[in-house]
Amino acid sequence: MPEPTPTPAVPAPSPGGPRRISKDTTLCLSLSGRPSNIGTRFHNHLYAELGLDFVYKAFTTDDIAAAVGGIRALGIRGAGISMPFKEAVIPLVDHLEPSAAAIGSVNTIVNEGGRLVAHNTDYVAVARLLAEHGVADVVGTDGPVVVVGSGGMAKAALAAIRDSGFTDLTVLARNGSSGPALAGQYGARHRSSLDGLRPALLLNATPVGMAGGPEADALPVPAEVVATARVVFEVVAVPEVTPLVRTAREHGVPTITGGEVVALQAAEQFVLYTGVRPSAEQVARAAAASRD
Amino acid sequence: MPEPTPTPAVPAPSPGGPRRISKDTTLCLSLSGRPSNIGTRFHNHLYAELGLDFVYKAFTTDDIAAAVGGIRALGIRGAGISMPFKEAVIPLVDHLEPSAAAIGSVNTIVNEGGRLVAHNTDYVAVARLLAEHGVADVVGTDGPVVVVGSGGMAKAALAAIRDSGFTDLTVLARNGSSGPALAGQYGARHRSSLDGLRPALLLNATPVGMAGGPEADALPVPAEVVATARVVFEVVAVPEVTPLVRTAREHGVPTITGGEVVALQAAEQFVLYTGVRPSAEQVARAAAASRD
Repeated sequence: MPEPTPTPAVPAPSPGGPRRISKDTTLCLSLSGRPSNIGTRFHNHLYAELGLDFVYKAFTTDDIAAAVGGIRALGIRGAGISMPFKEAVIPLVDHLEPSAAAIGSVNTIVNEGGRLVAHNTDYVAVARLLAEHGVADVVGTDGPVVVVGSGGMAKAALAAIRDSGFTDLTVLARNGSSGPALAGQYGARHRSSLDGLRPALLLNATPVGMAGGPEADALPVPAEVVATARVVFEVVAVPEVTPLVRTAREHGVPTITGGEVVALQAAEQFVLYTGVRPSAEQVARAAAASRD
Repeated sequence: MPEPTPTPAVPAPSPGGPRRISKDTTLCLSLSGRPSNIGTRFHNHLYAELGLDFVYKAFTTDDIAAAVGGIRALGIRGAGISMPFKEAVIPLVDHLEPSAAAIGSVNTIVNEGGRLVAHNTDYVAVARLLAEHGVADVVGTDGPVVVVGSGGMAKAALAAIRDSGFTDLTVLARNGSSGPALAGQYGARHRSSLDGLRPALLLNATPVGMAGGPEADALPVPAEVVATARVVFEVVAVPEVTPLVRTAREHGVPTITGGEVVALQAAEQFVLYTGVRPSAEQVARAAAASRD
């Protein structure tokens, strides 16, 4: 959760009341291969609660360059960027903030008067959740960490884990190209199979377990590996309880869920788009509404 | 007004109630140099009354090519096109319907699964209003007609007037290039000043009289010319009563207003975007709401 801050000076909230969209309403959106309703509900809930004249909607595209060009040309204020576009948008924006440049992965674009500035709030969210859940105390900073996956979210997670002080890092990735590259970038080992390795902290940054995907019912690692972890960190947000989270809980392993990552990184996006920081309670209510 | 049609089979209307925007909500928009709230209110009112999961918002842009590319890439269903973009979008779309091709001016783009199809509903609206108001009976089809202006709306109006049977056509335009070209295209004379000509039907298709414009308080022709017209047809929609309409009414000259044009052409756009034809009463209510 972000630090609770005083409620900013905005018009009186009208939660649930009809918002009237006008020519002056600010549009924000998201771009992903498989849009969900989580971001749309989260942001629109907070706009209503805070009385902000914004509207948010999820989109997909088969032409990311034209979509980003349209964001700039239409004056769309902000865009959440999800798989598979997190790296593809890098050459399409005008400036990378350090959070995105260090990771080579963008999850947020802010349109500053026609200049597109890219951020990565996934990195911020993963780092905060590791701290809030006391993972370093449970696992030990020298405990074995396995990050499964080698895409944009795996990059953000691995960077946040390393920057949180963890030292024994392994990237588990079937992809023989991006896996070793990612591992090399952050001082981690790469493996294409576990071969007996038992992680203390297991983080899934693949689409395995994602509702509607080809591996919706699968686990990213065998159940016995899940069972012996000290903390399981899931990045997949839909469904709320993935097979990985369910398996971990069945074995009493503490979990951090994709829903937590999504809510926290979305709150950071909200601040970037609106300039208004919602309170922890407001974020929690918006996150609950986004799961309705 | 369009022909009243039976209310189509759509979900129960929830006028005024909060619509919840989701990833599946269809976005339509407009592009113009000076956005107004008329279209935004008109379309959103009808979406609510008909229970359609659509949302509409006016935009402007300083990069029309990127904006139209964004419409295609983001799957935005439809776009109303206003000055100064009505001709600029022609090379950016994939197909011109006859209403747009004959006029060389686009006011509506429909995104048919990534294929952008251009229409001109202004032409349809002007022709219908001439018929509904019985202008040919009042003026006589051989009465002198003057169309002031030489832009996209002047083209649509002149074509609709000619196709409604009027034969004595003059284009009054200060622009020494587009004025003669437009006149020549539709068998009209071009004049850069009236020189004693007294139109029976006077149609203003310039921004003169438009709120917020540089000539908001001006008349497109001298007041004595307005006073002797048989019918005055104003295309400027904001304000509802322009100096031209006010002057005509002060002299008892029947008027057709830009508000009527906007409502009727917007209803035709609505049908193209949604596939649903609102009743005449629904259009009238939406037009009234759009002037609130």
